[in-house]
Amino acid sequence: MALARSFIEVEPDSHFPIQNLPYGVFRPKRGGNPRVGVAIGNYVLDLALLDEAGYLAGTRAAAKHVFAQPTLQAFMALGRPAWNEIRAVVSSLLLADEPALRDNAGLRQTCLWLQRDVELLLPASIGDYTDFYASKAHATNVGTMFRGKENALMPNWLHLPVGYHGRSSSIVMSGTDIRRPSGQMKPPDAAVPLYGPCRQLDFELEMGWMIGTGNELGKTIPIEEAEDHIFGLVLVNDWSARDIQSWEYQPLGPFLGKNFATSISPWVVPLEALAPFRIPAQTQEPAPLPYLRQKRPCAYDIQLEVYLQSGSGGAKQQDRIAASNYKHLYWTIAQQIAHHTVGGCNLRPGDLLASGTISGDSKSSRGCMLELTWRGTEPIRLSSGEERIWLEDGDRLTLTGWCQGDGYRIGFGDVSGRILPAI
Amino acid sequence: MALARSFIEVEPDSHFPIQNLPYGVFRPKRGGNPRVGVAIGNYVLDLALLDEAGYLAGTRAAAKHVFAQPTLQAFMALGRPAWNEIRAVVSSLLLADEPALRDNAGLRQTCLWLQRDVELLLPASIGDYTDFYASKAHATNVGTMFRGKENALMPNWLHLPVGYHGRSSSIVMSGTDIRRPSGQMKPPDAAVPLYGPCRQLDFELEMGWMIGTGNELGKTIPIEEAEDHIFGLVLVNDWSARDIQSWEYQPLGPFLGKNFATSISPWVVPLEALAPFRIPAQTQEPAPLPYLRQKRPCAYDIQLEVYLQSGSGGAKQQDRIAASNYKHLYWTIAQQIAHHTVGGCNLRPGDLLASGTISGDSKSSRGCMLELTWRGTEPIRLSSGEERIWLEDGDRLTLTGWCQGDGYRIGFGDVSGRILPAI
Repeated sequence: MALARSFIEVEPDSHFPIQNLPYGVFRPKRGGNPRVGVAIGNYVLDLALLDEAGYLAGTRAAAKHVFAQPTLQAFMALGRPAWNEIRAVVSSLLLADEPALRDNAGLRQTCLWLQRDVELLLPASIGDYTDFYASKAHATNVGTMFRGKENALMPNWLHLPVGYHGRSSSIVMSGTDIRRPSGQMKPPDAAVPLYGPCRQLDFELEMGWMIGTGNELGKTIPIEEAEDHIFGLVLVNDWSARDIQSWEYQPLGPFLGKNFATSISPWVVPLEALAPFRIPAQTQEPAPLPYLRQKRPCAYDIQLEVYLQSGSGGAKQQDRIAASNYKHLYWTIAQQIAHHTVGGCNLRPGDLLASGTISGDSKSSRGCMLELTWRGTEPIRLSSGEERIWLEDGDRLTLTGWCQGDGYRIGFGDVSGRILPAI
Repeated sequence: MALARSFIEVEPDSHFPIQNLPYGVFRPKRGGNPRVGVAIGNYVLDLALLDEAGYLAGTRAAAKHVFAQPTLQAFMALGRPAWNEIRAVVSSLLLADEPALRDNAGLRQTCLWLQRDVELLLPASIGDYTDFYASKAHATNVGTMFRGKENALMPNWLHLPVGYHGRSSSIVMSGTDIRRPSGQMKPPDAAVPLYGPCRQLDFELEMGWMIGTGNELGKTIPIEEAEDHIFGLVLVNDWSARDIQSWEYQPLGPFLGKNFATSISPWVVPLEALAPFRIPAQTQEPAPLPYLRQKRPCAYDIQLEVYLQSGSGGAKQQDRIAASNYKHLYWTIAQQIAHHTVGGCNLRPGDLLASGTISGDSKSSRGCMLELTWRGTEPIRLSSGEERIWLEDGDRLTLTGWCQGDGYRIGFGDVSGRILPAI
C-alpha cells in the first residue's frame, strides 16, 4: 500500500506527516483566542475555524464546540469514538487527492497557520500529574548509587509500578526558561544543612500520556480497558534538583527536588498514530498479580534523544548526550493506569501520567545526568571542550523523540528549556 | 467590650457566630446554581444574592462578581484587602442593631437559607494538594513503630517541614461515603505480595489551609509574607490504607495508600476569625535556617475531636476516640508556605495545604488509628462493647474542631465519612 500523502508538503524527516496529526492548543501571534489545532508539516490546522466553517459537521465533537477552547479537555472527555471521527475527517481533508481544502484558497488562508506564526500553549489545564519509575535500568542505576548493587531495586519494584504524585501547577510548555531553584540541602561533608542554589541540577528524559476519559472515584479501570482512556503521548522533562531531593525525600518522597518545574512538548500524539510502532513489552519476571496482567502487553519503539547546548562562550552547537528508547520501560502504560486506579483513585481528562526516567542498559542510553555522569564522577565532555557533571546556568536542554516508519516519522517535536541562574 | 451579637440567634456552642463568618459554596436543595455563602448560626447568607441586590456595592469583590460562581477561587484571588472589605460588610449587615437586613423581611427571605435546605459543595476546584508531616509526636510515634525509638525521627525532620504532593482529584466534601480501597500489599508473614481489600483502613486528623493569592512560578513567598496568602482553614481527614502504603511507599512516598479519598469540611474559616486564638508556636531546637525563621512564630489553640460511630448492630451512639489540638504542630503554617515556595514552586488560589496528622504527647491525643492502637496491638473499646484496631465497613468517622472563646466558639463544623465495603 502506498503511503498516504497530504497536499501540504511534508519532508520525510518531519515529525508531523499526515500519519501523525497530533493535537495542540495554539494562539496566533498576531492575536486571537487560544484554540485547538492539528500539526501537519510546518503548519497548524485550525480546528476551531474548520468547525465554524462546517467542515466537521456531523461529528460528536462539532456538536459540542470543543475546539474553540483554550484546552483540549472538552474534546478529551468525549472519548475514543469522537477522537476517531475527527482523526478520520482531518486526515481525509488533508489528503493529496482531496480537493475540499486543497482547492479552497480562502479556507486554506484562514485555517492553516505556519507554526512559526503561532504560540503553542499547554494542551490541558492538568488537574493531577503522576510520575512513575518504570525503567528497570534507571531504578537499578539509582538504587546502586544510593544503596549499593545488592540492594539496588526495592523489594516492591518488580511487583508494582512505583509512582508518586507530582506538582501540576509548575508544568510548563516547552521553551519556558527554568529558574535554578534554591533550597535546603546537606552535602555529605556538612555537619548541618545549608540553604543555597541547587548544585546538582538535572533533567529527566521521560514520556507522558494524557488521560482522555477518566473514571469515577471509587471505580477502577481494568487493565484491558486502560488504553481506551489514553488520549495521547507527549515528551516530558521532569527537571530535578538532586541535592535538594536527596536531603528531603525520606520518608514521603520527592517534593521541592521536583516541583520547581516540569516541561512538556506541545503536541499530543494520538495513540492511534503510534499503533504501527507497537512492540511486545519486556518479559516480566515474576509475573505480576492478575490485576496487572495483560493479554498482549506492549511497548512502543520510540527513539529518544537528549541534546545539551552550553550557555557559555556563545556556543551555538548542541551535543547529543544520550539516546534512549521508550521500549526500555518495564511497566506498560496499561499497567500503570490499572495500578493507579485499582484502589478507586479517579483520573480526569487532561491528567498527565509520566514514565519516569527512561534509561536503557548501555551507558549512552541513560536518561539523566545523575546516571550519565554516575553521580558526578564521570563528566560528560562537550564538543566545545567543556565538561558537565550537572546542568549549568545558560545551558539549554532539549529532548526529542520519534518513531521511524518507512519513509516517514511519527514525531513528538521537542521539549526544550534553558537554565536561568538562581535569584 | 461586650461581645458583638447578630440579630440571627446563635447558640453559645454554635460553631458559626458573627465572630466567625466562614465562607462556603452551596446549592439550594430545591434547585439553583452553586454560589458563595457565609455561615451564620443555622443559616447561610447568600452572597451572590446580596451582591445582586447591591448590598456589597463599592467593594472590590462586587466589582468582579465573584460570588455567583461555583467556587471561591475568584474571590480568593482578590487578596486580603478584598476579603477584609466583604468581612466588614457582612459582619455589619448581620449585627443585632443594624436594621438594613434585619428589618427587610423580603431580603431575609431570599438571602438567608437554612443550612438544612442547602447542599454544601467543595469550596474550590483544588489545583494541587500538599500534605505535610508537621506534628513531632506523630512523626516520632510512626518512626518508633517502623524503625525503633532510636531512629524515630528522620535526620531531616527537625530542619525542614517534610511534605509531599497528594492527589487533588479525590478530595471530597464531608458526608461523602468512602469506598474501602483494594490494592496490593505484603503482610509480614506473606512470601509474596497479594491483592485484596485494604485490611488496615485508617483516618488522619488534620487541618488544612486554602491558599488565597498565589505566587508566580520561579518566585518565592518570604516567610513574613506567608500568612497574607492564606484565605482560611478547614478540617481534613486524609484517609489512609496502611497496608497498601507500607508496601508501596519506598522510595517515592505514599501513593495508592492515600489517593482513594481525602475529605474536607465545607466551611473555610478566615484567618482573621482565628486571630484571638493565636498562641506562640513550639520552641524549635535546632533553630531553623533563616528562610524558615519567623519573628513571631504562631500556632492556634484549636480543639480537635475524633468520633467513631460503629456501623454494626444499628449503633446510634458515637464514641469520642481522640481529642487533640492544633497547637501540637511543630512547624507553623508560614514555615510550610515559605518552604513550599523556596525553590519557586507556584501556589494557586484554592490550593490546599494540610498539616499531616495532629497528635499530642498523650495517648488520647493521637490523631489516627495507627497510633491510637499502636499498629493494631492496643484495641480501642467502644461503648457498644465492640473493639476496633482499624476502621470497619459501616463505621462513620467524624472530625470536629473549634476555638473556645468567652461565651462563643469559632468552629469548623465537622468532616464526616462512612466506610463502604470494597467492591
